[in-house]
Amino acid sequence: MTKRPQIYLFGDSITEESFDVGGWGASLSNFFSRTADVVLRGYSGYNTRWVLKVLERVFPVSQGGDSGTETAPIALTVFFGANDACLPNRCSAFQHVPLHDYKENLCSIVSFFKKRWPTTKVILITPPPIDEVARLRYPFENNPEGLPERTNEAAGEYARACITVATECHIPYIDLWTKMQQFPDWKKVYLSDGLHLTNGGNQLVFEEVIKKLRDEGLSLESIPVDLPLVSDIDPNDPLKAFL
Amino acid sequence: MTKRPQIYLFGDSITEESFDVGGWGASLSNFFSRTADVVLRGYSGYNTRWVLKVLERVFPVSQGGDSGTETAPIALTVFFGANDACLPNRCSAFQHVPLHDYKENLCSIVSFFKKRWPTTKVILITPPPIDEVARLRYPFENNPEGLPERTNEAAGEYARACITVATECHIPYIDLWTKMQQFPDWKKVYLSDGLHLTNGGNQLVFEEVIKKLRDEGLSLESIPVDLPLVSDIDPNDPLKAFL
Repeated sequence: MTKRPQIYLFGDSITEESFDVGGWGASLSNFFSRTADVVLRGYSGYNTRWVLKVLERVFPVSQGGDSGTETAPIALTVFFGANDACLPNRCSAFQHVPLHDYKENLCSIVSFFKKRWPTTKVILITPPPIDEVARLRYPFENNPEGLPERTNEAAGEYARACITVATECHIPYIDLWTKMQQFPDWKKVYLSDGLHLTNGGNQLVFEEVIKKLRDEGLSLESIPVDLPLVSDIDPNDPLKAFL
Repeated sequence: MTKRPQIYLFGDSITEESFDVGGWGASLSNFFSRTADVVLRGYSGYNTRWVLKVLERVFPVSQGGDSGTETAPIALTVFFGANDACLPNRCSAFQHVPLHDYKENLCSIVSFFKKRWPTTKVILITPPPIDEVARLRYPFENNPEGLPERTNEAAGEYARACITVATECHIPYIDLWTKMQQFPDWKKVYLSDGLHLTNGGNQLVFEEVIKKLRDEGLSLESIPVDLPLVSDIDPNDPLKAFL
């Protein structure tokens, strides 16, 4: 009997909050309830620069035993960029990472995982689009100019950089920035505060991750159920199922 | 850097479904999002007799490395009895386990964990009360008599047996059967089909588990946050936080 397969969710607040009511992380856990463990590694406010400083601490080699016996997760989502894309001259400037650095950092993060776990399906998720008007409805303490700390245009540049990294690294990606904006009412349906996800937004991310995992060969059909389902147990001789 | 602490949820369908929208498992994950991993081990339809046959498979020693280096979870909920309490002469008889056997099985399950992980806080949860009228609204295929497969009285007997086991083993328990019925409108507020949980029922279980964990010394105050919170990061020198 081996350990149950694991799917890691690694990202910023949109990942950290993904087990809140209706969240995409909880939905994944529920979907894979008998087949895989969904492990949350979400860090609100973090950008790729900070992440690079803590990668070894978030994913210590001792995890799952010493490196020789460590089991690679079957999949891992990497969902950073929303904070890197904060504008350098606005109130969240301390989270900003220049576009070029973001690209390099994201590359390094992917390389870290590919070196550590060559078989793991690493999926990049772009930052979501930004509703600038909605951002101003959630005022920051130090924002004398009253301008949004993020713009949709900047988020789009980081989204495209994320896709470039995925393409160069030959790994799958979810273009959330584009996908959401294909829906006319995206600002209302998908975003709660112009950045974070509504239930609708969470549902979209969940469905996109499921779809991407399926493309990579990971689905309820391909991952074995850990133990007999009650529907497969013979009511006349239940214990037979456990021999 | 050590592995993040783990909290296992081990039980039947009320555990397996606990990551559905508003579920108590997802709420626990969300609550401990930066401090502990909540690991789902829910097995719909299972009773303590079946569970005893698969304990080693659900909790393989290889998990977390070989037994010498294995890290014990900080806590584990054991939430069985709703299926054992199915009546022996009704349509779900194949899930029934006699009261005396249930007690012995539950004892064996607790012993297994106490032997494997002496430091782990094992919390027993009694089966919930049963709304027999609501059960009949969800008809079974083979139920010619049209009688509920579970009764509240029987569930109560199993709940008391569960408490006896907890008391004899000197471990904490949550008397869900009693707790729910303290609220006059419990059938509607806590149960969706006379057995499984509504959002209100999930909220109650979540709060009771949090409370019990706190009693056992496990809380957001006692479990360290894995990495600096963004609110603790100096905007003038963010990287200082990661030295």
